[in-house]
Amino acid sequence: MFIFVQTTNKMNKRGFASDNNSGVSPSILKALENANEGHVTGYGTDIYTKKAIEIFKKFFGFNIDVYFVFNGTGANILGLSTLSQPFHSILCPATAHIMTDECGAPERFTGCKVIPIETPDGKLSPELIKPHLHGFGFEHHSQPGIISISQVTELGTLYQIDQIKEICQLAHQHGMYVHMDGARIANAVAALNVNVSDFTRDAGVDVLSFGGTKNGMMLGEAVVFFNRDLSENAKYLRKQSAQLFSKMRYIAAQFIAYLENDLWLENARHSNEMAQYLARKVQNLGVEITQKVEANGVFAILDPRISETLRNEYFFYDWDENKHEVRWMTSFDTKPEDIDGFCENLAILLHA
Amino acid sequence: MFIFVQTTNKMNKRGFASDNNSGVSPSILKALENANEGHVTGYGTDIYTKKAIEIFKKFFGFNIDVYFVFNGTGANILGLSTLSQPFHSILCPATAHIMTDECGAPERFTGCKVIPIETPDGKLSPELIKPHLHGFGFEHHSQPGIISISQVTELGTLYQIDQIKEICQLAHQHGMYVHMDGARIANAVAALNVNVSDFTRDAGVDVLSFGGTKNGMMLGEAVVFFNRDLSENAKYLRKQSAQLFSKMRYIAAQFIAYLENDLWLENARHSNEMAQYLARKVQNLGVEITQKVEANGVFAILDPRISETLRNEYFFYDWDENKHEVRWMTSFDTKPEDIDGFCENLAILLHA
Amino acid sequence: MFIFVQTTNKMNKRGFASDNNSGVSPSILKALENANEGHVTGYGTDIYTKKAIEIFKKFFGFNIDVYFVFNGTGANILGLSTLSQPFHSILCPATAHIMTDECGAPERFTGCKVIPIETPDGKLSPELIKPHLHGFGFEHHSQPGIISISQVTELGTLYQIDQIKEICQLAHQHGMYVHMDGARIANAVAALNVNVSDFTRDAGVDVLSFGGTKNGMMLGEAVVFFNRDLSENAKYLRKQSAQLFSKMRYIAAQFIAYLENDLWLENARHSNEMAQYLARKVQNLGVEITQKVEANGVFAILDPRISETLRNEYFFYDWDENKHEVRWMTSFDTKPEDIDGFCENLAILLHA
Amino acid sequence: MFIFVQTTNKMNKRGFASDNNSGVSPSILKALENANEGHVTGYGTDIYTKKAIEIFKKFFGFNIDVYFVFNGTGANILGLSTLSQPFHSILCPATAHIMTDECGAPERFTGCKVIPIETPDGKLSPELIKPHLHGFGFEHHSQPGIISISQVTELGTLYQIDQIKEICQLAHQHGMYVHMDGARIANAVAALNVNVSDFTRDAGVDVLSFGGTKNGMMLGEAVVFFNRDLSENAKYLRKQSAQLFSKMRYIAAQFIAYLENDLWLENARHSNEMAQYLARKVQNLGVEITQKVEANGVFAILDPRISETLRNEYFFYDWDENKHEVRWMTSFDTKPEDIDGFCENLAILLHA
Repeated sequence: MFIFVQTTNKMNKRGFASDNNSGVSPSILKALENANEGHVTGYGTDIYTKKAIEIFKKFFGFNIDVYFVFNGTGANILGLSTLSQPFHSILCPATAHIMTDECGAPERFTGCKVIPIETPDGKLSPELIKPHLHGFGFEHHSQPGIISISQVTELGTLYQIDQIKEICQLAHQHGMYVHMDGARIANAVAALNVNVSDFTRDAGVDVLSFGGTKNGMMLGEAVVFFNRDLSENAKYLRKQSAQLFSKMRYIAAQFIAYLENDLWLENARHSNEMAQYLARKVQNLGVEITQKVEANGVFAILDPRISETLRNEYFFYDWDENKHEVRWMTSFDTKPEDIDGFCENLAILLHA
Repeated sequence: MFIFVQTTNKMNKRGFASDNNSGVSPSILKALENANEGHVTGYGTDIYTKKAIEIFKKFFGFNIDVYFVFNGTGANILGLSTLSQPFHSILCPATAHIMTDECGAPERFTGCKVIPIETPDGKLSPELIKPHLHGFGFEHHSQPGIISISQVTELGTLYQIDQIKEICQLAHQHGMYVHMDGARIANAVAALNVNVSDFTRDAGVDVLSFGGTKNGMMLGEAVVFFNRDLSENAKYLRKQSAQLFSKMRYIAAQFIAYLENDLWLENARHSNEMAQYLARKVQNLGVEITQKVEANGVFAILDPRISETLRNEYFFYDWDENKHEVRWMTSFDTKPEDIDGFCENLAILLHA
Repeated sequence: MFIFVQTTNKMNKRGFASDNNSGVSPSILKALENANEGHVTGYGTDIYTKKAIEIFKKFFGFNIDVYFVFNGTGANILGLSTLSQPFHSILCPATAHIMTDECGAPERFTGCKVIPIETPDGKLSPELIKPHLHGFGFEHHSQPGIISISQVTELGTLYQIDQIKEICQLAHQHGMYVHMDGARIANAVAALNVNVSDFTRDAGVDVLSFGGTKNGMMLGEAVVFFNRDLSENAKYLRKQSAQLFSKMRYIAAQFIAYLENDLWLENARHSNEMAQYLARKVQNLGVEITQKVEANGVFAILDPRISETLRNEYFFYDWDENKHEVRWMTSFDTKPEDIDGFCENLAILLHA
Repeated sequence: MFIFVQTTNKMNKRGFASDNNSGVSPSILKALENANEGHVTGYGTDIYTKKAIEIFKKFFGFNIDVYFVFNGTGANILGLSTLSQPFHSILCPATAHIMTDECGAPERFTGCKVIPIETPDGKLSPELIKPHLHGFGFEHHSQPGIISISQVTELGTLYQIDQIKEICQLAHQHGMYVHMDGARIANAVAALNVNVSDFTRDAGVDVLSFGGTKNGMMLGEAVVFFNRDLSENAKYLRKQSAQLFSKMRYIAAQFIAYLENDLWLENARHSNEMAQYLARKVQNLGVEITQKVEANGVFAILDPRISETLRNEYFFYDWDENKHEVRWMTSFDTKPEDIDGFCENLAILLHA
């Protein structure tokens, strides 16, 4: 949940509003140019798409299916709808993107009930989930069908591998599936310093929204099914949800450039480091940080009068107006001097 | 309706399969590069989007609303869902893209019944529509709500301005709306040699899917509402249908480059001319053309054995297998020598 | 399709408008009274429901599942949604109740595309169906999933057993299911003089809407799945579609009374005979009958001025206004003197 | 939320499982018999329906619309869908029937997000609602559209008139509507001893599900729109949701008998009194009551071993297994001796 405040639209200044306010990595742009050669068949039957999928198979093994879509909401509804029937429920943290930031797309497209679970840090746990695991076989209840977690969470926190394994075990014991919203998965891989399969496929996750847009791609997300038996209907559901790109090569080519030479991890490491740098600097200024800074988000308490002035120069969003909590996101293109400038302004305002 | 045949994937050879098998106009790529500067707020609150919308207002006047989306299906379901309630029906030609090529996305997202009307040439007319205008107020019937037409049609034919006016009058007399699928609207403007508003807004159309992808853009369509009273819910429906692009500037910048310097019309004119050239040449070879060639599509009867060989070199699709009817689409990047080469091959096969 | 004309509401006079304008068989009312004893658990876990299902198993064998619902539309959407995914299409005659008389409930609840096929007599055949069996595996197309037929058809005609078998074979060859709308199934059994399983389960039908309301019950339809593997989700879908009756015993008790002592067949035989009697009498008056009279519906051509006067006394509906075609339905409670009186009036009007 | 336990099906013994386990008031059965005369037009155009609606207008004034449906879930989805767009959210108590007992029907039929709010007693209040009133105009958020409250609540508690007024004011200030689930509205009227319009229409409620089934009718609920401007689409939505009864007279006749001679209030008063009697008796036995007993439900803590034995004779449901909380519902036909017998058994088990 973030609260919208109209920006003053200062021309293209880097701020801390969202990792999607940033632009595109230069090598991604270059890849688009290189892919712009002649005709290829549409809708994912081209050689770029084939190659991009092969890279995913190197990460996750061969018994997977990969479906490229336009955006994160599209990825989530494709994964969720493929693994559910409309009479299922989807359990997620109350802060989940699918709960608060997709305008009800999951309910509308899947027909399912989405059940929000309050958490202190954006993370589910078996203890938080168990009270919702009832009513199986009882037709009056939406049948618990999917547990959806975000890695990185919407509060900038991370699940450890074992925590994900426990959730997946619990889900599978109950015949449920686990969906991971990985809009910021690169930041998670960079922060945990493990293989991407360690906390996804190998931990028991069934379907993953693998994000690219927030970390230097222009657009494009991949829905990765870790069991091909589950994805039988995915191609139809992608088309029916208006997420099938005709000129697919232009998403595929981005993913190739993004993944082939570790661009995704370099961008994410930088972004994560900038968040650490920002957190340290604002804490030194006496600002209270409200969530562990584990990836590229910093949540802090700030007097709204200070926020109001501060965001004129460096745009950012309120997170929880009632608590005066704000959210600062760093990005692959954040420069240390952006943070320095921001903290100088902040220091002046704090001591005014 | 076109029948899928697996391509042999000859590397990036220009063929006649679809205008979305082509690449991107160089100036569009350049525009993407130029837009890649610093941070801008997401989701369409940026200056590129503002500017792109202003260009649309120059075309259509100020009382319009413009919503950019990812693709044609996304554009159609946004326009249709904004103007309908789920108990409505949508009347369209049996050949309409919304009927045959969107995997039921309109039904699923709007809840409406889509009613196909047989036509000889992909075009509706008052005579064809009238038998379906009944049951108003009768709750057992899906209430006739929207007439959807395509300009250019899926058969490569064109409505004259007066033909559209008649349909719009009929619709409005019955309290219905008119939706135009303009996936190839540039080809229509180029062919009719009129202003784009002449056969859309000024003819009475209520909402338009204004396509870019099939005529040299990388991706991006605009849903144009010609009456702002009708578009009140459109922003929510765009988000809920997963068609809201976070880094919107990269669609907006394309539209600016596409529209500002007549690129859209140059591309379309060339494409249309290539279709004429192709049609003349194949007719000279004795091939029967089945639809008027009014834009960039050529429909012809061809022995399937000839098709099979011919498409190894220059890929294209069957249209109606039973009738041995094939579809050849020209594109902004089709070269006369592509057609010459194609016709040489065809001539050899015909005389074998 | 029938055209609504406001009745003059002559108090409870028997007419020929619809078999649901009639009341309830006295023994059905008696059964309701008898079931009204003490408490039983709700939602179908009671002994009446158990017994009613056993009767269905006597008709159709033991490997079936039976779900009672409120009405015909509810029965159809339950059967169709259980056997489909939202990206499927449902093929049916253009005159099918699911196409013309359910206000789009099938599309809205299943998400599927419903494809109408023109027929001369309300009956599908392999020849009529085959042109629609394409696009399998092609994600742009709604995947052909279900063939839906009505027995008795909405035009009062009947499929012979072999005709149903041929349709079922064709469907199953293509991995499709067959749904039968049996709103008037009792009339079909009575007319064909066969066992009800002969033209349903044994002919290959997968799911049946078994109607009661139009033939002497107060309300209640049964959805019969002829293969229990297919009905796994049906109980949830019945609840989610708001078709699960809390006091289920009051539908179950009706079905027991309806089926146990051949009431359903007696009512249907009478109704069918009355249609024959009516047809003969109006033909003797020179009226043109437009469809074979095989069950309890008579379709005829009648000058609208005559219809207008005639229906003041004996209410009925227009079927196709353009053709001056009207529909007369007989019912379990139609009396020969109703027909005599009606034909006397008709004779006077015809000779005026 | 109640937990299903398979009953031992002791033949038709009155228990405390649910007010829908009871039968039908004799005068309702008589009314069905009386309505069974000749033909009337279907779907609510008959004289019984007309008369029943007139009775509702006596209660609520003339600018209302009344739509009869089959059951409570049907009533709720009709009211909610008529007053919402799919991008809205519906706020309700976490214990609401629409949240926990309708298998996701509201999400599936409306497309809306249903947001559960934790409450101590099943009742919303401005304080509980306000934290959810944000994101208006922000397209990423489901737009708060409807506040849904139940009167009587699912915990057997009651809103006072002023409490409802405050909720309605808050809703209307934010452009939202108020839906009331009145499945047990008669019990509320009887308990509050006011006119039914006092805490519905006059308090600001926009649409009401007016229940009959749980209080002596066989089946039938009424959706009452207190502003006819809001119900324009209701007739289509009733049909599309498969809630339009063909032989409508048989619901209408029940409502006439139910409402005309205060049967509804007599039944409810009796049922409420029985709950008071039951509550007093079990409290005297030392059993802890967990919710105020304001209508016909009694919630209590009971050792599961005692529950297990006790429900063999007098069936009832667990409410919250974790807390050993059970629910006892009394009904219009509960006899004091049922309670006496039940408490005798309970006393023996408690002292064993």
